[in-house]
Amino acid sequence: MFCWLKLLNPGVVTPTGRVNRLIWGSFSRSLVLSSQRRIPEFSSFVARTKTCGELRSSHLGQEVTLCGWIQYRRQNIFLVLRDFHGLVQVVIPQDESAASVKKILCEAPVESVVKVSGTVISRPPGQENPKMATGEIEIKVKTAELLNSCKKLPFEIKDFVKKTEALRLQYRYLDLRSFQMQYNLRLRSQMVMKMREYLCNLHGFVDVETPTLFKRTPGGAKEFVIPSREPGKFYSLPQSPQQFKQLLMVGGIDRYFQVARCYRDEGSRPDRQPEFTQIDIEMSFVDQTGIQRLIEGLLQYSWPDDKGPLGVPFPSMTFAEALASYGTDKPDTRFGMKIVDISDVFRNTEVGFLRDALSKPGGAIKAIRVPGGAKYFKRKDIESIRKFAADRFNQEVLPVFLKANKNWNSPVANFIMEEQGLGLTRQMEIQEEDVVLLTAGEHRRACSLLGKLRLECADLLEARGVVLRDPAVSSFLWVVDFPLFLPKEENPGELESAHHPFTAPHPSDTHLLYSEPEKARSQHYDLVLNGSEVGGGSIRIHEAQLQHHILEAVLKEDVKLLSHLLQALDHGAPPHGGIALGLDRLICLVTGAPSIRDVIAFPKSFRGHDLMSGAPDFIPPEELKPYHIQVSWPTDSEADKNSLNHPHHPES
Amino acid sequence: MFCWLKLLNPGVVTPTGRVNRLIWGSFSRSLVLSSQRRIPEFSSFVARTKTCGELRSSHLGQEVTLCGWIQYRRQNIFLVLRDFHGLVQVVIPQDESAASVKKILCEAPVESVVKVSGTVISRPPGQENPKMATGEIEIKVKTAELLNSCKKLPFEIKDFVKKTEALRLQYRYLDLRSFQMQYNLRLRSQMVMKMREYLCNLHGFVDVETPTLFKRTPGGAKEFVIPSREPGKFYSLPQSPQQFKQLLMVGGIDRYFQVARCYRDEGSRPDRQPEFTQIDIEMSFVDQTGIQRLIEGLLQYSWPDDKGPLGVPFPSMTFAEALASYGTDKPDTRFGMKIVDISDVFRNTEVGFLRDALSKPGGAIKAIRVPGGAKYFKRKDIESIRKFAADRFNQEVLPVFLKANKNWNSPVANFIMEEQGLGLTRQMEIQEEDVVLLTAGEHRRACSLLGKLRLECADLLEARGVVLRDPAVSSFLWVVDFPLFLPKEENPGELESAHHPFTAPHPSDTHLLYSEPEKARSQHYDLVLNGSEVGGGSIRIHEAQLQHHILEAVLKEDVKLLSHLLQALDHGAPPHGGIALGLDRLICLVTGAPSIRDVIAFPKSFRGHDLMSGAPDFIPPEELKPYHIQVSWPTDSEADKNSLNHPHHPES
Repeated sequence: MFCWLKLLNPGVVTPTGRVNRLIWGSFSRSLVLSSQRRIPEFSSFVARTKTCGELRSSHLGQEVTLCGWIQYRRQNIFLVLRDFHGLVQVVIPQDESAASVKKILCEAPVESVVKVSGTVISRPPGQENPKMATGEIEIKVKTAELLNSCKKLPFEIKDFVKKTEALRLQYRYLDLRSFQMQYNLRLRSQMVMKMREYLCNLHGFVDVETPTLFKRTPGGAKEFVIPSREPGKFYSLPQSPQQFKQLLMVGGIDRYFQVARCYRDEGSRPDRQPEFTQIDIEMSFVDQTGIQRLIEGLLQYSWPDDKGPLGVPFPSMTFAEALASYGTDKPDTRFGMKIVDISDVFRNTEVGFLRDALSKPGGAIKAIRVPGGAKYFKRKDIESIRKFAADRFNQEVLPVFLKANKNWNSPVANFIMEEQGLGLTRQMEIQEEDVVLLTAGEHRRACSLLGKLRLECADLLEARGVVLRDPAVSSFLWVVDFPLFLPKEENPGELESAHHPFTAPHPSDTHLLYSEPEKARSQHYDLVLNGSEVGGGSIRIHEAQLQHHILEAVLKEDVKLLSHLLQALDHGAPPHGGIALGLDRLICLVTGAPSIRDVIAFPKSFRGHDLMSGAPDFIPPEELKPYHIQVSWPTDSEADKNSLNHPHHPES
Repeated sequence: MFCWLKLLNPGVVTPTGRVNRLIWGSFSRSLVLSSQRRIPEFSSFVARTKTCGELRSSHLGQEVTLCGWIQYRRQNIFLVLRDFHGLVQVVIPQDESAASVKKILCEAPVESVVKVSGTVISRPPGQENPKMATGEIEIKVKTAELLNSCKKLPFEIKDFVKKTEALRLQYRYLDLRSFQMQYNLRLRSQMVMKMREYLCNLHGFVDVETPTLFKRTPGGAKEFVIPSREPGKFYSLPQSPQQFKQLLMVGGIDRYFQVARCYRDEGSRPDRQPEFTQIDIEMSFVDQTGIQRLIEGLLQYSWPDDKGPLGVPFPSMTFAEALASYGTDKPDTRFGMKIVDISDVFRNTEVGFLRDALSKPGGAIKAIRVPGGAKYFKRKDIESIRKFAADRFNQEVLPVFLKANKNWNSPVANFIMEEQGLGLTRQMEIQEEDVVLLTAGEHRRACSLLGKLRLECADLLEARGVVLRDPAVSSFLWVVDFPLFLPKEENPGELESAHHPFTAPHPSDTHLLYSEPEKARSQHYDLVLNGSEVGGGSIRIHEAQLQHHILEAVLKEDVKLLSHLLQALDHGAPPHGGIALGLDRLICLVTGAPSIRDVIAFPKSFRGHDLMSGAPDFIPPEELKPYHIQVSWPTDSEADKNSLNHPHHPES
């Protein structure tokens, strides 16, 4: 973790591996002022008159009272005091008359909390610290009070040694004092506040709180259950306020938003949290374009000043195009290396597996070009790429290098005919030192594999020093025209919603719902930032009849569970649509934090534990009685099986 | 429930029993504009160009597109269209060329959703409706589109007959279209937004989201439990973010707030919700006065313009004074009738039960004077007051009237000596037609009884037409200096926290914690509005040693459950304090809603049911398996016992 002392040195490396050129002073300024039109009064209602971090030469001669933590002490002469706003140097008085003040300031352990009063004075000439925002001044102390003493810390806060995340989570209240956590949480608060201003004050949205104790939704296998005091009856914690926001539209709220707590029980998954937050939005009388323009405006308005302006509108891409060119529904468009269909080049190939692929319906030959791959990749890199393809996709990947002599270097080099070679070079724009990775198979499968390889190769190139993705760039993208349904994984003969059953079909495809629903596209849209999905939404079905058809005839769901929603649609539901932004992920990308756990004050470990308090925890059986439940303790053999499933899962 | 048509007539009576002089037009203006510095763009990003409610003479000649619900239709000539913003009259075209438009507008059932485009024109002279905000204009329609048709409604939205709350909750999406629900939810959103601006933008508070999947707190019997996928381990839904906000202070966040969802499982209780919202605040380096000034500023800033300005600072009263004068810790200070101690007057009384009371330690004679009681109260009112006292408090209450001839009319009239009569008259300022209610007994008990009677008498007087509590007045009050501990109800030899174990003792009383903790006052403060508690908070203990002493030595709690908090206090915890405002209750009082269910979009019934979706509901046993729990179905005899406990609990 980023530690405080490092902040005094410019150019230190953050845990994200990026060079961070900001020092504490400029950090603290951006922390407090960015995206705020006026400076809040940070010292109203409290014992201090100023914050440590705000003092400048303009305050010279002022009498101030400061409250903060002892950051460090130098030879019992200076003490650096810290608050959320920054650091300031305090001069420990040495004269006999101030012995009690000196005693307090010299004896208090580091990280103790003190209150000092004194005068802002200039530092002696030559002793200014230009790297510190308050480096021109220091505090001549008159009185000091120890507010609380700090016991021995579990880890040296100043320690340059990186702490394990488990230790950070166990002592989260200490970890929160780090600059990085302060920065992340404050930026999160400010961005959300700006979003609220945009929605509420500029565009008339109504902030409505919806319940979290709700009824199980059809297929809601990932919903936590909460026993009620009625035997056998349970509430469920919803994964999103989806039903409620649609009902609010039926209720004439017109424009709804909520910074909504959502819940998802997925067991152990890295970088997921059992509770998370989304910016949840719904509007009546809106179409897809309306939602897109709203969100672009929202992000533009709330985007931190120091992250550069956002260009709008964001580019848009169909799902089909995203899959074909990037092998994913969330393309990272900060760099090229797009997937190219080279089936035509190899239409007459003699290479067996390429011919096989082309002969099958939907079969194709696809490739990506890695610029400089021949220069930066080692033999073992190529081997591990091929192994990855074989292990995870059961697919063959062929590397193709263009040698300086214009000959090919590839396992299939002998089979590349001249015409094919020229075609390949032309279509892929191959240059010397590039490598082309080529695969063949069913379109979707081949693209997915190359999409994965594209990202692997990008990581590899960057690890070798190639700058591919500018960390200062925020590359937003809309992905649209998703399929409405997908074949069920466990039973491909049946369909399930690609997103959720309330998504409206694409206007041109409504007729397909009654004939070939698997071919219907939807009015769903995803928002992608730098290759991560940060939001998704859709225009919803507002006609009861269509909704009923989809639930019952297409999805074979039990419509009774949703009878209230179907009834609502029948009682004058306006056309409506909405979106939800994943706030944790978005803030994570904006701050450059390595994990969403770094933008959440008290996250769970990836096994869902609160390492600080020890939740979840055992509960005495008598406290379960009012809920009419009892624990089904697993038998020994089940317990063994269970632990086998998680053989090596140390916390975080 | 307030219904739409009534809005067209001024002076209708709302369900709260108050006369509401606003009509739809002025309502809609106050709905949208009050406490907003600029008018939001309500028609950005959507199919309409204007809202129905915003059209005025200044829009004459404009081409507009409106979307809304058909409120009613008159003789196929006029149609009133409604959106959240208000009503507007649409002229149905009668000429042959517009037959299709006429067909749509005449055939669509009431509450169907339509889009119309047309021109804003003046109403013909004499046909203006001054009671309607849009009453000077109407819309000459060119095109119309039926967006969704409305099936037969479960209740006539126009019906003047009051709907049962159960029906309203079952069809909440229809009920939300009522003016009153729109008003309540929009005012709530706006007030919370203003609070956020005040805290975040003006005073540098950080909005931090804290977890709701947490660990059981000591004594947390009212916490919902959530089974995890680890056998026997449960999360708990916390009743407030208390621990987290204190840990945020230890973590240097300095100023925290959150509009926090809280949970409390109290079974069936009227006007309580299993999930509710509080404005949760915590500050470092603050004292009681600091928090009070912050909250006064917060309420002043966010108070709706049309509710009149708030005077600050709010008056303050000690708990002892509140008990002695009002018999409660939440005095309604909008009217007098204070409790008076008249022990001295009757020091030498010959009335047996008065003498008995005075002879006991802590015994006293107390009375309230009901102005005009002799005039407004009937004999049976007095009887029911005396019965209430006997049944609920096992206390005798004596009515004393001053007759026109200056003689006393009372069961004990013969025993009131002249001197006592004079003393009583002087001390209670008794006038003709007043009634004095007199009781004797232990101080706290006697005051509690009279406090209850004071409110009963006030209700009775108002029911008889006396205006006692001005509905336009918002009477805020701080109650301070609460006892830190109270004897446990079930075991009066032991102490429990009057509020929670983290409350700091009153500075003057800290020494008592080690000798007579039951006598220590706390630094807890309650905020009371018109006799309802709307907030409470305290300065917290920031020293681990003191916290440990209170948990272990005084409260006999298992300190292990709070070891993380004790450790945090030992690692440089700043002095800190905070408060939480009950948002639902506050908005309820501001809007004058009869129940908190009227300021919540989707409330639970008082038995904790969602009457719309039917939550909580049964869950198939296989869905409980991953959580290692099973239902303990009650035996028949238990089930009988259970239903006996709730013999007559129809929903809501």
